[in-house]
Amino acid sequence: MTPERSARLRAVLARRQPDLALVTDFVNKQRNLSAIVRNCDAAGVMQLHAVLGEEDYRAYRGTAMGSHRWVEVVRHDSAGDAIADLQSRGHQVLAAHLGEGARDYREIDYCRPTAVLMGAERRGVSETARAAVDGFITVPMMGMVESYNVSVASGIILAEAQRQRAEAGLYDRCRIDAATYQRLLFEWAHP
Amino acid sequence: MTPERSARLRAVLARRQPDLALVTDFVNKQRNLSAIVRNCDAAGVMQLHAVLGEEDYRAYRGTAMGSHRWVEVVRHDSAGDAIADLQSRGHQVLAAHLGEGARDYREIDYCRPTAVLMGAERRGVSETARAAVDGFITVPMMGMVESYNVSVASGIILAEAQRQRAEAGLYDRCRIDAATYQRLLFEWAHP
Ligand SMILES: C[S@@+](CC[C@H](N)C(=O)[O-])C[C@H]1O[C@@H](n2cnc3c(N)ncnc32)[C@H](O)[C@@H]1O
Ligand SMILES: C[S@@+](CC[C@H](N)C(=O)[O-])C[C@H]1O[C@@H](n2cnc3c(N)ncnc32)[C@H](O)[C@@H]1O
Repeated sequence: MTPERSARLRAVLARRQPDLALVTDFVNKQRNLSAIVRNCDAAGVMQLHAVLGEEDYRAYRGTAMGSHRWVEVVRHDSAGDAIADLQSRGHQVLAAHLGEGARDYREIDYCRPTAVLMGAERRGVSETARAAVDGFITVPMMGMVESYNVSVASGIILAEAQRQRAEAGLYDRCRIDAATYQRLLFEWAHP
Repeated sequence: MTPERSARLRAVLARRQPDLALVTDFVNKQRNLSAIVRNCDAAGVMQLHAVLGEEDYRAYRGTAMGSHRWVEVVRHDSAGDAIADLQSRGHQVLAAHLGEGARDYREIDYCRPTAVLMGAERRGVSETARAAVDGFITVPMMGMVESYNVSVASGIILAEAQRQRAEAGLYDRCRIDAATYQRLLFEWAHP
């Protein structure tokens, strides 16, 4: 590995955000999952919690692109477990949702430990997830179409989270512990 | 048509932005074009200028989703023509691009007449377009992956344009002329 490559891996690791997560609630089109993984990587999200059937997950792993290496994809059988786990680790879990009562996504404080949950392509956010999350956020739309593509919606929300965290200096100092840093540096450097 | 439907069409028309446009420079995956059309509709963009071969365009029209009805897709043979046309109508044309010298997309004043040009999935922004645009904008990324999916990048940029225009009150009064309003209302109501 060249010194430049090593420096790049270290710089990216030093910008990782251990307290920003994404959950997908039965999003199952591989191209959407792949675009979402890219969005996660771009914002420094370390883990994508994919609530997904075993088979869809295997199909996805089989075809996925390089960005997998940079974002850990953790499969869950149920949205309830994934949400409870994140909440128990202090995250506010917010579902991106189109219904009434959802707050404008820019009103949220994303510098707090936060997980954003994205609904499935057709059915949106499941009832299980709706009952368990801490709140709902929506990206305002001015047109006729009722929703964005799920990867686009997650990209818009994560860009706002990134903006807030950049302003707060959260990308300016390493935020992961030494053991995790060393483990990831090793894994990234030796695929 | 129900009175509710008619009121909805009128409300959306009254939020259309005749001086905000999107150009795609040989973006040719249909799912990306479809997601981009949804992004346009959401921000009030009335026209998508698609620089695209005749065949790709026909394939796209053949399979496209409902959002087409709300956004006019204009095909162009060359990026040069599309850009010159928009510039002659007073638009700043900005290419979304990953190279050096590009400005952070949030530094731009999108309340000015503006067209955002998106590059192709593989090749990015063409040389023709690079030579013709008024400037370059980039969405900062904190990770290892070098680019967003093109529909995600366009969604992030248009969400910022929409935010600025909403703040400036540009969605609060009808901005299209009476003749265009009547023509579109008729077309939207009678598919
Ligand atoms: C294609 S949408 C699902 C539409 C579904 N028919 C519904 O009514 O929920 C897929 C997911 O993208 C996200 N999404 C799309 N547009 C959104 C918006 N404007 N605000 C918040 N989330 C959005 C939500 O997580 C949604 O569940
Ligand atoms: C997948 S990218 C193309 C990557 C191509 N290999 C390149 O080097 O340009 C497709 C298009 O999405 C847009 N795009 C993707 N990520 C972007 C970013 N971070 N900033 C600005 N535009 C971006 C650009 O218009 C780009 O041409």
